[in-house]
Amino acid sequence: MQFKKHILDNGLAVIGEVNKFAKSAAVGFFVRTGSRDETMQVSGVSHFLEHMLFKGTDQLGPLEVNEAFDRLGAQFNAFTSEENTVYYAAVLPDYLGEVAKLWTHLMRPALRNEDFNMEKNVIKEEIAMYEDTPSFDVIDKGRSLHFDSHPCGNSVLGTRESIDALTSKQMREYFTSRYSPNNITVALAGNFDWDKMAELIAERCGIWQRQSVTRQTPDYQGSLKSERLKKKNLNREHICLISPAVSMQDERRFAASVLGTIVGDSVGSRYFWALVDKALAETATMQCESMDGTGAFYSYIRCSSENLQKVFDTVKAIFDDLNTNSVNGTELTAARNKILSALVLKNEIPMGRLVSLGFNWVYLNEYRSTRQDIADINAVSVDDINSLIGYFKPGRFTKFTLGPGNATPNQP
Amino acid sequence: MQFKKHILDNGLAVIGEVNKFAKSAAVGFFVRTGSRDETMQVSGVSHFLEHMLFKGTDQLGPLEVNEAFDRLGAQFNAFTSEENTVYYAAVLPDYLGEVAKLWTHLMRPALRNEDFNMEKNVIKEEIAMYEDTPSFDVIDKGRSLHFDSHPCGNSVLGTRESIDALTSKQMREYFTSRYSPNNITVALAGNFDWDKMAELIAERCGIWQRQSVTRQTPDYQGSLKSERLKKKNLNREHICLISPAVSMQDERRFAASVLGTIVGDSVGSRYFWALVDKALAETATMQCESMDGTGAFYSYIRCSSENLQKVFDTVKAIFDDLNTNSVNGTELTAARNKILSALVLKNEIPMGRLVSLGFNWVYLNEYRSTRQDIADINAVSVDDINSLIGYFKPGRFTKFTLGPGNATPNQP
Repeated sequence: MQFKKHILDNGLAVIGEVNKFAKSAAVGFFVRTGSRDETMQVSGVSHFLEHMLFKGTDQLGPLEVNEAFDRLGAQFNAFTSEENTVYYAAVLPDYLGEVAKLWTHLMRPALRNEDFNMEKNVIKEEIAMYEDTPSFDVIDKGRSLHFDSHPCGNSVLGTRESIDALTSKQMREYFTSRYSPNNITVALAGNFDWDKMAELIAERCGIWQRQSVTRQTPDYQGSLKSERLKKKNLNREHICLISPAVSMQDERRFAASVLGTIVGDSVGSRYFWALVDKALAETATMQCESMDGTGAFYSYIRCSSENLQKVFDTVKAIFDDLNTNSVNGTELTAARNKILSALVLKNEIPMGRLVSLGFNWVYLNEYRSTRQDIADINAVSVDDINSLIGYFKPGRFTKFTLGPGNATPNQP
Repeated sequence: MQFKKHILDNGLAVIGEVNKFAKSAAVGFFVRTGSRDETMQVSGVSHFLEHMLFKGTDQLGPLEVNEAFDRLGAQFNAFTSEENTVYYAAVLPDYLGEVAKLWTHLMRPALRNEDFNMEKNVIKEEIAMYEDTPSFDVIDKGRSLHFDSHPCGNSVLGTRESIDALTSKQMREYFTSRYSPNNITVALAGNFDWDKMAELIAERCGIWQRQSVTRQTPDYQGSLKSERLKKKNLNREHICLISPAVSMQDERRFAASVLGTIVGDSVGSRYFWALVDKALAETATMQCESMDGTGAFYSYIRCSSENLQKVFDTVKAIFDDLNTNSVNGTELTAARNKILSALVLKNEIPMGRLVSLGFNWVYLNEYRSTRQDIADINAVSVDDINSLIGYFKPGRFTKFTLGPGNATPNQP
C-alpha cells in the first residue's frame, strides 16, 4: 500500500492509496457539505442537489449519465448526511480514468429547471416514505430534539414545505458556495496509476473557482429534553435515546466505538442480554456517532407498550451498573474483535477502503492505514473505557418516543 | 490460487480455493435441494427448513446461534432457490475453523415443534409480503405458467395453505432424505489452511448417514401459454415474458448470458433504448437463468396501461430484428465488458468467490478459476450468438401480465 497526495492550487485535495494486488479500483468525490451547512430557508438542499447531479450536465441528459456508468461496468452511488455528500464508483482498473472523468463532468451539473421541478416529487416521496418508517423517524426527530438549535439537528431530507419552497436559483447559489474545490476531496483506492490519475483530476478540476467556504463546529452536549409523539396506527413503541460522545477529531473515538458495541451491539451486548434475550424488546442497539467537532451515542429500542416501563427501568439499571462497575475484560475483547472483523471485511476491497481513506482526510487531514486503525482498536483498554465513562457519565439522555398511546411512564 | 478437494466416504464433497493474499475467509454449505425437489404436499418446505436451521440444535437455542455468529464477527446468511439451499459466512482467517464448526452443528438441527409452529407465521408473512410486491409476484406466477407441471415451476415460498398443512414430521423426513452428505458440497475460499479445514469437516461430517438422493432433470421448452391477473389496486402493468434457454451444463451458457445482457440489461440494452429511453416503460430487463438440465430467458417490464400495446409491439419488433439481423460487434463488446466487470468485482473477495466455486462444483463437478470464466466470456463471438438465436428463435413467450384493468391487447 502506498499513500499519495496532491493539493491543487484551487484547494482541491487529491489523495490515493495504491494497491497493485487489487483487481478493481475506486474513486470518490467527498464534498464537505450536508444539512448542517444549510439555513432553514434551504433545508434539504444538500440531499436534493445530490439527486440533481445524476440529471446530468449541459452535454449529458439523465439517461445518458446512467448509460455512461453502465458502459464502464461501474458500481456507483452517492449519499448525503448531516455533514458530507459523497459520490463514488468502483470499476475494473482499465476504466478508472473514464469513470473519474465522468464524475468530474457531473460535478458541474446543468441543474435544469425542468429536472429540478420533476425531482421535487421524488424527494417529497422519499420524505413521506421515511416518515412512514418509525425506526427512521424516531431517530430523525430525536436528533433534532437533542441538537436543538445546533446545526447538527438539521434534517437531511428537509420537509415537504422547505422542498416546495426551494427555488433552483437557491440551489445554484448553494452549489456555487459549497461545491468549491477547496471543499472537495477526491480519493482513489485500489489498482491504479497515481501519476496518470492525479494529472487527469488536476487537468479537469484545476479550473474550478475557489470560493470562501466555512463551517461552524462547536461542540454540544445536547438538550437532554424529552418528547413523545403519538401515532395511532403503530403497534409498537419506538424509543430513541441520545447522549453526548466524542467527535471525529477526538482520539477517544476508538474507545467510544468499543463502548457502544459493549452496551448496544445488535447481538451479544448488554442491551441484547438484558432486553432482547429477556424478550422485553425486539430490538435494542446503541452506537457512537462521531461528527465534525461533536458526537453522540444513539440508542434505538423497539418494544410493546406493555413493556415500555420495564424497558426504561432496565436501561437505567444497565447504565447505573456501567457507571459504578465499568466494563470487564471479556466483553472488551469480544467487542474489539467484532469491530476488527467488520473493519477488515469492509476494507478488503478498494470500494471499502475508499470510504475510510476519504473520511480520514476530510475530518483529520491525515492518512491512516487499515493497520493503524487495527492497532488503535486493539489498544483500547478497560482504563480507556473507564475514563470515557467518568467523563461522559452516560445514562442521562435526550429522549424521543413514538408509540400508539399516551402512556408516558417514568423514563430513565 | 490453489484448488483442493476431498470427497468423504459418505459422499460429502469438500472443496477449497486457497488465496494467501486474502484478508478474510469464507465457508459455504451448498445443499442440492430446493422447491423443484418438493412434492405438492410439502410445497415450501426447503425454504421453511432453511429458516429452521437458524433455530438451533439440541445444544443451542435460536438466540445463542445468533450470538455465536456474532462473537466470531461473522457476516453470514442463507438463501433458498428452486434447486439450492445455501448457507454461508465470511470471517477473519483466525475464525474460519470456529464458524465452520458452528455450521456443521446447525446442519443437524433440532427442528423443535415450538419453533416450527412459531416460524410458520414468519413464513406466511413473507408469502404475504411477496404477493404484495407485483414485480416479484408476476415472475413467480409467470414461472409456474411456463414450467407447467415441470418441477422448476414449483414455488419456493409455497402457499399459505401448504405451509399451514405442513407438519414437523414431514419436514424431518424431507430433511433426512435431502440433507444427506452425498447431496452437500462444503466450499471454502480465501486465506485458510486447507489440511486443517479438510480434517475438521471430515471429522464432524464424516459420521452423517448417506441416503439415496435423486433429482429428475429433464429439459423443458415451456408451455408458451398466456395469462392475465387483474388486481384493481395496481397503478401499473407488470409483464413477465419467458422463453427457453440453456442449462447450467450447456457450454453455450456464456453466450446466452451475453445475449441476455444485449437485449435486456437494465441500462444500455435494446430494451433500454427502445422501451425505457422512449418512455414507453419504466423498467425493462431480460436475463438468462440457467438451471439444472434446463434454462429460460426471463423478461420483466413495467409500464402504464395506456402503453401496454405499444410495449408489446416494440418487444415484437426487437425480437423480429434480432432473429433477422442478429447482434453487432459493438453491442457484443459492451455486453461482454459489463459482464466481466461485474464478475471481477464480485470475485474480488472470498465471499464472492465462494458462490462461483460452490455452484461450479454442484452443477458441473468441476473447478473453474475466475480466469477461465473471463476467458470464456471474452471468447463469445457474434457467430456464437447467431447460432444461439438460430437454435432458440427467441420471440415466442410464455406471458403473464398483472395489471389494474381487463385490457388484453394483442401480445407479442
